[in-house]
Amino acid sequence: MCQPERVSATDSAPPVCVLGLGLIGGSLLRAAARAGREVWGYNRSSESADAARADGFEANTDLAATLRKAQETGAIIVIAVPMPAVDATLEAIAAHAPNNPVTDVVSVKGEVKAAVERRGLSARFVGGHPMTGTSASGWAVGDADLFIDAVWVVATDDGVDADVWTQVADLALDCGSVVVPAESLEHDRAVARISHLPHLLAESLAITGAAGGELALGLAAGSFRDGTRVAGSAPGLVRAMCEGNRDALLVALDEALALLQRARSELHAHGSTAEIVDAGFAARGAYESHERWDITDVRVGESDWINRMRDAGRRGGVIRRRR
Amino acid sequence: MCQPERVSATDSAPPVCVLGLGLIGGSLLRAAARAGREVWGYNRSSESADAARADGFEANTDLAATLRKAQETGAIIVIAVPMPAVDATLEAIAAHAPNNPVTDVVSVKGEVKAAVERRGLSARFVGGHPMTGTSASGWAVGDADLFIDAVWVVATDDGVDADVWTQVADLALDCGSVVVPAESLEHDRAVARISHLPHLLAESLAITGAAGGELALGLAAGSFRDGTRVAGSAPGLVRAMCEGNRDALLVALDEALALLQRARSELHAHGSTAEIVDAGFAARGAYESHERWDITDVRVGESDWINRMRDAGRRGGVIRRRR
Repeated sequence: MCQPERVSATDSAPPVCVLGLGLIGGSLLRAAARAGREVWGYNRSSESADAARADGFEANTDLAATLRKAQETGAIIVIAVPMPAVDATLEAIAAHAPNNPVTDVVSVKGEVKAAVERRGLSARFVGGHPMTGTSASGWAVGDADLFIDAVWVVATDDGVDADVWTQVADLALDCGSVVVPAESLEHDRAVARISHLPHLLAESLAITGAAGGELALGLAAGSFRDGTRVAGSAPGLVRAMCEGNRDALLVALDEALALLQRARSELHAHGSTAEIVDAGFAARGAYESHERWDITDVRVGESDWINRMRDAGRRGGVIRRRR
Repeated sequence: MCQPERVSATDSAPPVCVLGLGLIGGSLLRAAARAGREVWGYNRSSESADAARADGFEANTDLAATLRKAQETGAIIVIAVPMPAVDATLEAIAAHAPNNPVTDVVSVKGEVKAAVERRGLSARFVGGHPMTGTSASGWAVGDADLFIDAVWVVATDDGVDADVWTQVADLALDCGSVVVPAESLEHDRAVARISHLPHLLAESLAITGAAGGELALGLAAGSFRDGTRVAGSAPGLVRAMCEGNRDALLVALDEALALLQRARSELHAHGSTAEIVDAGFAARGAYESHERWDITDVRVGESDWINRMRDAGRRGGVIRRRR
């Protein structure tokens, strides 16, 4: 229908081959095309592939052919399928394009990394995670603007290839995101705290509130509405996120449980909530005052760059433009 | 400065004497005046009393004189002071206007009710709680529109006087609110679930997130932002709310803790979050689909009206207009 418009001069960057044309993959295909990259995609079901073609993109349902083209052109391959389909996708990559640079956009990084290692594809793999909404799904809801100003974690694990790392970071920047370098397991631990734990707390609040019956629900105002909002997310998506990050989520959940148990004891024994309320207020203040800063003193590929990049990411450092 | 405008024909309703001219009391004075009620107010500090006078209202810092006028005119007295000042206010009412109808707007009802009983004022007292925001304070931030479409709980305890109950409900309706009848302790149990528990969960989430350092805070998106919003409330206000409702809050907190402990076990043992996620999704759905309905079949003062009114409130019934 509409031709992808080209707005920047990144035509010399390698093509982008997107496997999976749902919300994230479909948005990525659009965003990379708009940035001037050559793009094509694959989707298992014909519905999204047909829809992508109807919108003027190259897309099909033949995984082997899609990957052969990637192999021939040196494209960067983006795995944008749900976690349960990742391993089969890696198997196909190993068969048809084993030397291409590969990244992914799955919300947990440790599990994907382990699967990549099992398939012997670690040398040219660097994981990624654009932190964007996922409540809707399918090609139709995709949006080239989805990644603008979003945080896109680029996995910065021991032994990653500097060239592939730069290609993944450049793809994120081309899509309008801000790159945060982080080791895969550190990413998983961080998102357990700020993305998966909030869901479990929201579920517990929704259940406890509703147990108060119509009277309680009728009196509920802003604090309950906001505190339970994500309990309205599709259960399947919430479960996939939380269960895919089990070990890190258990750690975060145990910390929250310990805080609440301690608050319970303080309230019961002394009638006070001072400790948790004061600490919570300070923590929310730390969140509100968090500021990104630009990583300018680490060159990808130089000595010790992986450790230095991770250290910068830990301290809030980001990359905002190609270098 | 501006004269209170009169917009409805409730001039025959008794005057309204407001003790405490902060956000809630000051808004109530304005809203009642706008509804055509004769109003005057008292404030302990001269700053808010002076500001109210400058805005064209009758207000002073002489509690005894304020109450004598209430006694002479048969005004309904509204206690709008913070919980720690309630008892001294009741003492003054017992001394100067012991037979006037009295209500309050404090966020816990059981504790106020007990203080009223200790001062021997139960015969003419009916508690109230307009469920509106309290993050700002002082006369200046007051707003005649504060109560419009808000839920205003009118305490429906054993032995309440039907005439006083109606006067309190009418005042809430005159201010634009929707009346929910509820027994004081039932009110406290309900707000523990939907108003006080959300604060403790938000504090625990903020602390656990911030413990992930700048990396975690930098990755935080909507679920963390919404889930921690009320952790930004002034600690003194949060503590007063939570600690003033200790017993009911402990019950709600224990329920949430049990749910989270159970989720922890399920995730640890079976890698699943199905139980809490499915139940939380259903509970949020119940909240979203909650609908108010009008109580039309209970006449205040008729046989068994207190039990029937409470029962209707438990089932989501409300009163939306004077009868």
